[in-house]
Amino acid sequence: MISKNQIKFIKSLSLKKNRVKAQLFVAEGEKIVNELLNSEFEIENIYATKQFSGLNSCPKSAVTLVSNEELSRISNLTSPNNVLAIVKISQQQSEKNHGITLVLDDVNDPGNLGTIIRMCDWFGVTQLICSKSTVDCYNPKVVQSAMGSLFRFDIKYLELTTYLADIDTPIYGAYMNGVDVKGQEIPNKVHLIMGNEANGISESISKYITNKVSVKNIGQKAESLNVAIATSILLHEFCS
Amino acid sequence: MISKNQIKFIKSLSLKKNRVKAQLFVAEGEKIVNELLNSEFEIENIYATKQFSGLNSCPKSAVTLVSNEELSRISNLTSPNNVLAIVKISQQQSEKNHGITLVLDDVNDPGNLGTIIRMCDWFGVTQLICSKSTVDCYNPKVVQSAMGSLFRFDIKYLELTTYLADIDTPIYGAYMNGVDVKGQEIPNKVHLIMGNEANGISESISKYITNKVSVKNIGQKAESLNVAIATSILLHEFCS
Repeated sequence: MISKNQIKFIKSLSLKKNRVKAQLFVAEGEKIVNELLNSEFEIENIYATKQFSGLNSCPKSAVTLVSNEELSRISNLTSPNNVLAIVKISQQQSEKNHGITLVLDDVNDPGNLGTIIRMCDWFGVTQLICSKSTVDCYNPKVVQSAMGSLFRFDIKYLELTTYLADIDTPIYGAYMNGVDVKGQEIPNKVHLIMGNEANGISESISKYITNKVSVKNIGQKAESLNVAIATSILLHEFCS
Repeated sequence: MISKNQIKFIKSLSLKKNRVKAQLFVAEGEKIVNELLNSEFEIENIYATKQFSGLNSCPKSAVTLVSNEELSRISNLTSPNNVLAIVKISQQQSEKNHGITLVLDDVNDPGNLGTIIRMCDWFGVTQLICSKSTVDCYNPKVVQSAMGSLFRFDIKYLELTTYLADIDTPIYGAYMNGVDVKGQEIPNKVHLIMGNEANGISESISKYITNKVSVKNIGQKAESLNVAIATSILLHEFCS
């Protein structure tokens, strides 16, 4: 049984200000919660139906058994999938400058951020720095579209101008008019900056860029590539 | 003024069976309709507010001036954008086998198909063959996410086994266990097959594949790449 107050609290976590205040976020569905149970994230509560496959792996004290109807009342999904977890926002470590660090300058769309996190996991990129205005990585849509990858990941939200002023690796930036990335020799330690969906990399950041790169527009007709698509192609070139 | 019957008819075009029957589809918004007006597609009707920037380029007989309120009644968008066009489904040409042909085997998600069409346009790929069960390219979500690229494009829905049996180029297929695409020499004339989001390339198709390729999973933890992301990386390698 879930109380009205619990429902209200869980739903309130769809807003960033409430997540920041409570230091909690929501993750849903069989696959994602099973990955959570194998991660270092600390789970505060698990609301699961009897059908949830990971039930035996859950810390007993954290589990509340719910009906499908109760689950749908707290879920952000149109088709809730057996389980919803309330998870503590992790205080991430502060190593930096090994391998490739991806930097996002005001990426706004939660689907784009989720997809980018998932592909970083694919390419073995484990460091992601986001500008303060980039969409929150604990936004429910980011959590769902990143699939389990969010839980293997070091994401920091920083003032980019301060952060970049102190960097000693080359800093690559994705620009429409950059040099074709294909076949370029990319150093092992490097930062790659991707800009906002509509406006690209902001003026205040551009002075830190040492190398402008782009994905060649062969067709010459399409105006732009989606930022997640461009990131995937650049990471494919940068990682090996 | 739009009649109730017109509203009903326009809304009915969100379903494939109605589009097929009427041989019409809906495209919306300033940018997309302006691209349409510069394409070879034949526009049946344009419902535009006075604010629509392309008003002077429209064939007068096709235009119905509407209020914002009327527009929102016929629109599929949460924020309608000045114009909605009803467009004739084009009978596409039947050239084949020049350059790269992309083949989609049951891609289901309209957002994925739209993104793939947009990136084909970026990479100068102009031929797309879809299996009969691939999502309809005139689905409203495909039209919106493809942005104007749909109107520069030759898309056919075919029985893939019949089509592929008759192909004389190498046929590459994207597999999780394929050979790393990076650095491979790709012939100029080639087919590239991408499979369904959940199940990959179907059994009945796999016998036609001459080369299995993949995007290397460097991180080794993520289970899969989104099909649009994988397509973008492969096209980046295939096109030059």
